Formats: sequence, structure tokens, C-alpha cells
Amino acid sequence: MDSFGKLFRIHIFGESHGLGVGVTIDGVPAGLPLTIKDFNDDLNKRRSGAKGTTPRKEADQPRFLSGIFHDHTTGTPLTILFENTNTRSEDYSKLREIPRPGHADFVATKKFGGFEDYRGGGHFSGRLTLGLVAAGVVAKKLLGSIHIQARLIEAGGTTDIRKAIDKAVEDQDSVGGIVECSVKGLPVGLGEPFFDSVESVLSHMIFSIPAIKGIEFGSGFMAAKMKGSEHNDNIVSMDGKTETNNAGGINGGITNGNEMVFRVAVKPTSSTSKKQHTMNMKTGKMDNLEVQGRHDTCIALRVPVVLEAATAVVLTDFMIQEQKIPKIYRGK
Amino acid sequence: MDSFGKLFRIHIFGESHGLGVGVTIDGVPAGLPLTIKDFNDDLNKRRSGAKGTTPRKEADQPRFLSGIFHDHTTGTPLTILFENTNTRSEDYSKLREIPRPGHADFVATKKFGGFEDYRGGGHFSGRLTLGLVAAGVVAKKLLGSIHIQARLIEAGGTTDIRKAIDKAVEDQDSVGGIVECSVKGLPVGLGEPFFDSVESVLSHMIFSIPAIKGIEFGSGFMAAKMKGSEHNDNIVSMDGKTETNNAGGINGGITNGNEMVFRVAVKPTSSTSKKQHTMNMKTGKMDNLEVQGRHDTCIALRVPVVLEAATAVVLTDFMIQEQKIPKIYRGK
Amino acid sequence: MDSFGKLFRIHIFGESHGLGVGVTIDGVPAGLPLTIKDFNDDLNKRRSGAKGTTPRKEADQPRFLSGIFHDHTTGTPLTILFENTNTRSEDYSKLREIPRPGHADFVATKKFGGFEDYRGGGHFSGRLTLGLVAAGVVAKKLLGSIHIQARLIEAGGTTDIRKAIDKAVEDQDSVGGIVECSVKGLPVGLGEPFFDSVESVLSHMIFSIPAIKGIEFGSGFMAAKMKGSEHNDNIVSMDGKTETNNAGGINGGITNGNEMVFRVAVKPTSSTSKKQHTMNMKTGKMDNLEVQGRHDTCIALRVPVVLEAATAVVLTDFMIQEQKIPKIYRGK
Amino acid sequence: MDSFGKLFRIHIFGESHGLGVGVTIDGVPAGLPLTIKDFNDDLNKRRSGAKGTTPRKEADQPRFLSGIFHDHTTGTPLTILFENTNTRSEDYSKLREIPRPGHADFVATKKFGGFEDYRGGGHFSGRLTLGLVAAGVVAKKLLGSIHIQARLIEAGGTTDIRKAIDKAVEDQDSVGGIVECSVKGLPVGLGEPFFDSVESVLSHMIFSIPAIKGIEFGSGFMAAKMKGSEHNDNIVSMDGKTETNNAGGINGGITNGNEMVFRVAVKPTSSTSKKQHTMNMKTGKMDNLEVQGRHDTCIALRVPVVLEAATAVVLTDFMIQEQKIPKIYRGK
Repeated sequence: MDSFGKLFRIHIFGESHGLGVGVTIDGVPAGLPLTIKDFNDDLNKRRSGAKGTTPRKEADQPRFLSGIFHDHTTGTPLTILFENTNTRSEDYSKLREIPRPGHADFVATKKFGGFEDYRGGGHFSGRLTLGLVAAGVVAKKLLGSIHIQARLIEAGGTTDIRKAIDKAVEDQDSVGGIVECSVKGLPVGLGEPFFDSVESVLSHMIFSIPAIKGIEFGSGFMAAKMKGSEHNDNIVSMDGKTETNNAGGINGGITNGNEMVFRVAVKPTSSTSKKQHTMNMKTGKMDNLEVQGRHDTCIALRVPVVLEAATAVVLTDFMIQEQKIPKIYRGK
Repeated sequence: MDSFGKLFRIHIFGESHGLGVGVTIDGVPAGLPLTIKDFNDDLNKRRSGAKGTTPRKEADQPRFLSGIFHDHTTGTPLTILFENTNTRSEDYSKLREIPRPGHADFVATKKFGGFEDYRGGGHFSGRLTLGLVAAGVVAKKLLGSIHIQARLIEAGGTTDIRKAIDKAVEDQDSVGGIVECSVKGLPVGLGEPFFDSVESVLSHMIFSIPAIKGIEFGSGFMAAKMKGSEHNDNIVSMDGKTETNNAGGINGGITNGNEMVFRVAVKPTSSTSKKQHTMNMKTGKMDNLEVQGRHDTCIALRVPVVLEAATAVVLTDFMIQEQKIPKIYRGK
Repeated sequence: MDSFGKLFRIHIFGESHGLGVGVTIDGVPAGLPLTIKDFNDDLNKRRSGAKGTTPRKEADQPRFLSGIFHDHTTGTPLTILFENTNTRSEDYSKLREIPRPGHADFVATKKFGGFEDYRGGGHFSGRLTLGLVAAGVVAKKLLGSIHIQARLIEAGGTTDIRKAIDKAVEDQDSVGGIVECSVKGLPVGLGEPFFDSVESVLSHMIFSIPAIKGIEFGSGFMAAKMKGSEHNDNIVSMDGKTETNNAGGINGGITNGNEMVFRVAVKPTSSTSKKQHTMNMKTGKMDNLEVQGRHDTCIALRVPVVLEAATAVVLTDFMIQEQKIPKIYRGK
Repeated sequence: MDSFGKLFRIHIFGESHGLGVGVTIDGVPAGLPLTIKDFNDDLNKRRSGAKGTTPRKEADQPRFLSGIFHDHTTGTPLTILFENTNTRSEDYSKLREIPRPGHADFVATKKFGGFEDYRGGGHFSGRLTLGLVAAGVVAKKLLGSIHIQARLIEAGGTTDIRKAIDKAVEDQDSVGGIVECSVKGLPVGLGEPFFDSVESVLSHMIFSIPAIKGIEFGSGFMAAKMKGSEHNDNIVSMDGKTETNNAGGINGGITNGNEMVFRVAVKPTSSTSKKQHTMNMKTGKMDNLEVQGRHDTCIALRVPVVLEAATAVVLTDFMIQEQKIPKIYRGK
């Protein structure tokens, strides 16, 4: 199912080269001021253009189909549509025969019996994250002073990210990266003891972002190498502030009032201009593939704003569950 | 909510030092042969006893409360109860004042207003994984020839795990570890394109296991350092087998028919005998804490069977969704 | 939440006088042939025009936003939009002061703090059933030979329905009615023992249709007056056919292979041209209200096709749950 | 699935002649005082004993398996078990061959392939309502001053209920009845515009109660015979009180602050001592059946407290959704 959330619930739809992509958000409190302008910043951050991103340019103009009245949310489903404008489907038609390594082409055609819209990855495309970013804009407004910040901290194995990108462009290859996200201002008590721990729900949402292959909270994989006496964060204030933050702001699956910190591993873009030797499903023989089309050298460059959106959506849901965001927001 | 799953759905309940812990499983196909004996192996693996595990010994005897008739599942809710027998609640009563660093004590009392059963971690205790392991036994039987195997591959930063444990016991400290899980025999096509990707649903479930702080699929965090031309797994057979397995058996969130591989980071047990300097919530002053009670030196030792169970539960749900496990199992 | 269903799941959105109304359907098997033409018949049945229906005319032209490729469903979310074209919002603006008796005006403004789109009932409008009818078209195709038929059997207390309508039009009043729905060709075994009984899930869905105030299955309220020896349906064939059908095709919440029969009570349209004496929320005094705008004399006339759609959606979900509709439909 | 609810969520399990029946309630706010004594009144009301009810006597002693600590709810899952003590399974064994008309015997064996626990109706038994009544006790406490009252208003077609029962006992037959439920003290604004209307969610829950075959809100089926000018409830106060209550306290699926009123039709108990002529599934020929065992002459006598519980559970969930019951109840 393409739905996520419990009380703040998003449903995404669309395809990369179809009519458009979009999102319906259910559970938005009534009375939140919201106009198209609110979306500009985050859509710009997600948009390609910088070195290392795809030359495909899209207007990415959001259009409210429902749920807005007099520039405020109505409390009923909010649907936002992004029509596709710049599509070149002819680029992809021949990929039906040779599924691109690293892509969803092979699994999609097996799962959907060949009926999938294969153009540009169809419903598997990173373009679907537009709906998520739009939902993130709404969520961030509801979160008020809770501040979420994600940034690329490593690409191609180095923290000199510009250099890594330059090298990859030169090599006509792609590179992966690591994005770190931190959240300040969270109350104690978000999350549930077992299956709906904060780590559980966040990672569920975050692994839906294409290209993410790992996530770690606080010290994460480094914690596996530590002793308990090193890893434990001693509490130093009555409101739960800790000396260190190896837990990444979460104990027992519940926020502890410290900064929440996690990192994700982004794999290198699967589409590269390098020749690949892989199966041709029509001939049943190994074949050479050179992927055409327009692609990102380092998709991780575009992940931070998507990761922020994913995080904001999850935290908004938890905040509503804890009754910390009122049902009628009243234009605050 | 303490529920997980869509068509194969588990609900857990209980406390570490209350009457017991248990699980209700909804959506079990009718006609699966099931007796108490089926649980022995996995409960033994989970049970403490080896060096590095807690001296608390529990019988861990499962009892069917519902859903079994003539040694077969009935198709209606299957409830399994484990009564607690060996509890020493007096060990914990004074921890109300000084929340243990690294534990859920502080967040629990904030979230539940002091009404939580704090004895032995209460509902946050690792003892709750008994219900998960029991559900895993049922799931594994339904999965038939799909084979799940988890093992501890690193502890305290070394692959010489025995040595790491010995050192930690000697230091009266605890150590973390890394557990790897692989799954053989999966069909192509499990998982959904976006929010219910295999990585999403698996990580949701797996982060509910206490002490897990990171997860990575296939090359995981290493992928972030790779080039696309290195990371892409070329397809070498008509059924999708690949030359390498950097994707860990999952493309676009969907199983691709190769071995599924992922690793989790387990933090060191938070309870150590080392003296800790932390806040006393009664006095409002920093205080020294020496955690008594009976604890695991390396909780990661007991994670593999829990991880297998978690994985089996998720995969069973996906298999039923794909109509690959019939509604009436008929005693196969 | 504006979502319904488990495996065949619909999400509706929109407002009566906003940009449009629509539906996203998740869980449609891939490979079902589907074009705009498939919607004509049911949209025509729902459309006004007959005596007793509103003079507001809408094109009701469906537009696929996602989920269709080469005239077949793709297996990913199917979104259908109906843009509003014929809106006269000025009719409604003054109703803010005097909530119309029988309508949702009063509760909507209390629930959504005055932020609701009040024009023409906004999100509460019967126009929202367009999305349901569209989902019903898809569901009916998936149901194949299972045949659903609903018809108005009584209006204004008489079976001479034409006469009842004529009288109400003459009186400038409105009338209620009873719609009966029967389903042929159902297999034994749809539905779940307790909370997801067929009656439970059907009535949940059906009471979401505006103006429905009662539902009864089989003999329904008449059963309350019967003896067990009269009401019991003796089984007369090995496949469960019964002599009588007082159960309406459902025992213990599960379909028994006989015709499913139920009836719903539709209240009279709340908007009438008759003068009403009710509270003016601005003045705090009782006031006279004459509802302008364009309305149905007997909304029950337009209920049958909506009821069929609601039933089809529920039964499709149950059929998929029972694995009786394959995940890949393959254009049958 | 045997689960119901969104934020106040119940899971039932068990069989009539197995080890017991029970319920797990998830989402109970922490800090509600709760002891076994709280259950006495409602369990007594549900218990058989009066003329017209089954001679099977059960202790119906609730036992908390989890979620209670120091006589207060903990905020984590609350599990209540009722062990079966008085079972006579031999009564039922021969019914496998001749499914009882009106019962779930036939559909159960088809749905679960013969693996169902058929003793005493197994999981389909009215005994499962014990868990529902227990959940209702908790819900009623949370609802505070909201008062729910259900009563049998008609049996066997007459309001002289005692007479109807006497006659049926004399005839060795059974009779149906009508139960009316009213709720006072509800706020305006519970329920959602479309799929989660109050009528939708209540009827979903209520049709899970065995033997219910119809439900109507306010004027219900009578509304179908009325004119709009008669049916509309004029508002006579600023807080929404109406002159009449044909809507039964609900407009557009949302509570309007007036008394909520609905009625359910209860079919006559299917088990009667009358000889029935029905199919023998072993011989494939019509056969005579005289149902032995211990049964209720008028099951409707025992419905009111179950209906109250069902209503309380649904309303509690809506109240929590509207943030009108706090997450930490603090022993009020």
C-alpha cells in the first residue's frame, strides 16, 4: 500500500512519465495557513540543477486539488498534484529487454506481470518523493519550533564532497553518500514501547526513499564496538538532558528530550553511463547495456530535503498521537 | 500500539515481573500442525545460560490459550502465554529514583506518568521478545523451505567473540555486537514499491527489538563509499540471479530472488556493574548508581534467534499478501 | 480518515464546490483492462436528470491521474479525478449564519473550527460519492460473474414510487425511501468471525453514504418478531443452499453461498423549499430559513448505483483476502 | 482480523469450549484506577440466569494478564482472560455431520477447512462477547459522565416481553427482539465526514455481536417514509440542541450534541429444541436434527450490556481521537 501514518497519514500516487505525481494527506488539523509559496523552499532544495544532479528540469508546480479553503487547511483530505511536463519516454522503451542492474526494472516486471508503467522507473521513480516533500512542508509547519536539519556529510567515501562529485562526473560514474539528520526541540515521550518505537517508524518511512540502504541512530554501528560503560549516556538534568548522546535521543524506542540524530547510507545512482554486462531477457543471453537518459551523478545530493520531509511526517504523527498538536490549529 | 503486520498480525503483551508475557497471532492459516514441542529449539536458543548471558533462569514454557485444536491451528487467533516464574522485584524498586542510563526508565515514567510497571523494565523488557520468538516459530513453519539464518559476527569490535565476552565479564562491563541475517529461497516480488518496501517493513519490525541501533541491507553503509559501476549487481540468469549481491537481494524495495542479507548493530547492555554518575530524580542532584539485578554481558548473544523470528514474521506476511501461502494450509 | 479497505483500499478527497472530487484506489491487481468508457454506465445512473433529482448538471468526466498504462491497471495506485465545472457558490454563503436543519453545517463548523469549505456541503456533499462509484466500476470488473443489483423499492412510504415523487415535487418537499441490494454468485466463506463480519464491513462502508440511516440483512428487523423455528434456514444441498433466506446469505458473519440480500433506509433530502424555523447562530435568535440552491426531491433515487459500488468495493476486498482474485489479473 | 479500533483498540481471542476467552486492549490511557470489582456489574448483567437464558453457568472470573500495576492501568496492553470452567463438549460432537440451521457451523467448516474448533460454536460463540463486555467496562470508566443505556424494548413482536419469553419457553422455541440504546452527554464533533462516520464505526462494531441483523439510527427505517419537512430537526439553541431528534444525534456522520439513539434487531436464537429437517453432510441426504445442549430462549435478553460495551468502546476511541481523553488519565 502506498499509505503511511496513523493520524497524520499520507497516500502517494503517480508515475515518472505519466500525467503526474501527488499526495493526499489525511489528518491535517484544520486552520493551518497554507499557500503554494510555502512549498517553494523545499521544492527548490529537492530540484536538480547543481553539479551532480540530473539535467532533467521539471517545473514541480504544486496544485491543491482539495483540502484548502481561503488559504487555510480545512481538516479534510489535502491533495497536492504535480503534473509532469518534461518527459522523454522514448529514452526508456528499450530497457524492457535489458533490465538495468541496480534498478527495479526486473522486479517490477515480475511483480506486476509486465503491466507496470516502465517509463523512467514509473511508480518506482525518485520523482515520487515530490509528494513526500510536499507532505513534509505541511508537517514542518505543524511542528512549529521543532527543527529538523539534514545534510550530506560524506560522498564517495570522503567528506570533501565537491571533489567526490567532480571525480565521478569525470569518470562518467556515480557515487553514494551518507546523510545525517538531527532534530532539535523534541519533547520527551514520542514513540511507543515496542513495534512503534521511534526508530521503527522512522526507519519504515525512510527506507521507502529510493537508494537508502542503511540507517543508524546515535552511535549506531559504532555502538556495536563499545562497552556499556562508554555507551550509556548519564543523565545530568531533571528534564533528562544527557552528558553524551550515544543513544541519538531515543531510549527504549521513546524520545528522551535530547537531540535526535541518525544517519542514512545512500547507494550510488544505479544509472551510470558505464557499459554494463547483464542479461537480455528477450534473447536470454548476456548483453552490453549503456544506460541513456538523464541521471544524477550523486543522488545523495538530493536526499537531505527528502529525509527532512520523511522525518517531519513521522514526528508530526507522533506529536498528534501524544495530543501535542491540537485538532483545530487555528492559524497559528 | 503493540501490534505488527497486515495479514499475519501479532499483538504482544505482558511485563517482565508481572504475571507473564505473551502474543496473539491473527491471520494464521488454518490447518498448520503445531504443538508445544515445535517451540523448544528456538526458545532454547533465546534462553540465557551461556557465558555472557543473565543468570536469571526462566522455564519459558509456552501455553496455548486459543487457536489450537487437535494439534493444528484453527485459523482464528492463536494466543500463547508464558507465565513468569522467577522474578525478584525487590531488585528494581529503588531504581525509580535514579533512572538507569541507557535504559527506558526515564522516558517510561515521563510517558506513562509514573503508572508504568517499572519492575525489571516492565513492558520495555527484553523478555517481551518471547512472544516474538513464539510467533517466529509459527512463521518459520509457514515459510517451509525459505531458510532464515542469523548469527553474531562481531562483538566488542572483534570477530573473536569468545575473547570479547571473556574480557567484558572480567571487566564487569558489557559489550555490543553485530548480527548478520541471511535468507535463502525467497521468491521474486515480495514487498511494495514505496512505503511497504521490504527494507521498510523489516526495519520497522527489527528496531522494535530492544538494543538494536542500526540496520543495513547488502553492502549497506559500505555502499555509500562505492561507485555505481561497482555497486550495481549484473543479472546473469533469466530468473534474476546476480553476479554480486550488493543490493542484499532487494531492488526498489522488492525481493529480487537472490539471497537476502542484512546486518544489525546491537548496543552493549545498558545494565553494567560499573558505577555510574547520573541524576537522582528525588534529590535533584547527581548521584552514584550501581545497577544490581541479573543481566546479560552481551545481549547480542541472544539476538540471533529473535532476529530470525522478526524476519520470519515479516516475510510470512509478505508471502500471504502475495498469495503464496494458502488460507487453508491443510497440515503440510 | 477518508480511507476504506484492507487489501483493496480507497481514499477519497475533494469538495462540492472546490476544484473537484476524486479517489485513489490502492491494491488494484495489475492487468485489468480499464478505460474511461467503463465508467459511463454507472456515472450515468448516478447522474441527476430524472424527475426528483437536482437540476445541477455536471459533466462528471473521470480523468486517470495515475495507475493506468496502455489501457490496463498497473498494480500501483489508481487515481481518478472529477473536476467540478458547474458550481454556484453564492447560493450557500449565507448559510453560515443559519445552519440548515438535517445537514452537517452545524457539526462541520464545530468540528473544523469554521475552517471547513462550507460551499455546497463541502467535503460532506453527496458529490463525494463520485469517487465511490468510480471505485465500484473497478471493483465490479474484478468481481467478474458476481452480480450486484440495487433498486429503490419504496419511497415516501409507498411502493408506487413515481406517485410519491410527483406528490413531493408538488408539495415542494422531499421524501425518503428504501433501497434493496442483492448479490448473486458469492462463494461460501467471505468475511471474518467477529469484527470483520460481512455485515460489519458492509455497514461500515454503507453508512458513509450520505442520508443512509438504517440497514438490515435478510429478514432484518422482521427477524426480531420471529421464532427460531421460523427464522432458521434449513440447508437443502451439499453446497449450502437453503430453503428460505432469512439470514440474507450470511451466517456468523460469513457468506453462506446463498444470495446476499440487504436493505437500507434513506432519509428524505434535508434541503427542502419549505420554510424552516431554526437558530440563527449570528443573532442567537430563532429565524426563518428557506433553502435556495438546487436539490434532489428524493435522494434515494440516486442511491442504488452508489450502494452497488459500496458493496462491490467491500466484496472485492474480501475476495482478495480469500485469495480468490489473483494479484496479477492478466487482462481477463 | 479480530481487532477493532484505532487509538483504543481491542483484540479478542478464545473459544467457547477451549481454555478460555479474552481480550487485549491497546491504547488505554495510563493511570485509570481498575480492579476486578469494576467488572462485577456488567458481567452479572451479561451472565445467564434469568428465565429465557441458558442454564450453562460460568464463573466468568476476569484475570488481568498484563497492563495493571498497583490497581491502575499502566498505559501498555491490558489483557484480561476468562477461563472456561463449565464445558460439555460431548453435546456438540455430532453436529459436525449436520450443520445446525442458522448457525455458523457450515460456513466455519468451509472457511477453515474443517480445522475449526467446532465445540459450542468455537470462536463464533456468543461467549466471545465476554472480552467485549470487559473492554466496555474500561471504556465506560474513561467516558466519565457520558451515559450509555441499552434496554430490550420488544421481544417476539410485542413489548410485553415477559409474556413473549413465557410463550417461547412453553413452545420450546426461541424469539428475537429489539434493543434500543441511548447515549447522553456526548460532545459535538465525534466522527469523521465519510468512511468513519459515527454510524459507520458503530455499526461495524455492533454487527460483530452475534445475532444482530439490523441497525437504525434515530427515526431509521421510519425516516424512509417521512418528508424532509417532518424529518429535519430544527435547531433551538446555540449549542445545537434540536426540537425533535429524528437524526438520532448524528448529522453528516458527526455527533451533534443531542442524545444519540439507535436500535438493533436481534434474531431469535438459532438453537431450538424443535425438530429441524436439514442436510446431513456425511450422508448427503436430508435428515432430522434436534439440537441438544443448553441455550438461550431469547438471546436478546443478554444483548443490552454487550451493546453498551460495544458503544462505549467505539465512543472512547472517538473521544481519544478528538483529544478529549488525555493520554495520562491520572486516576480521575
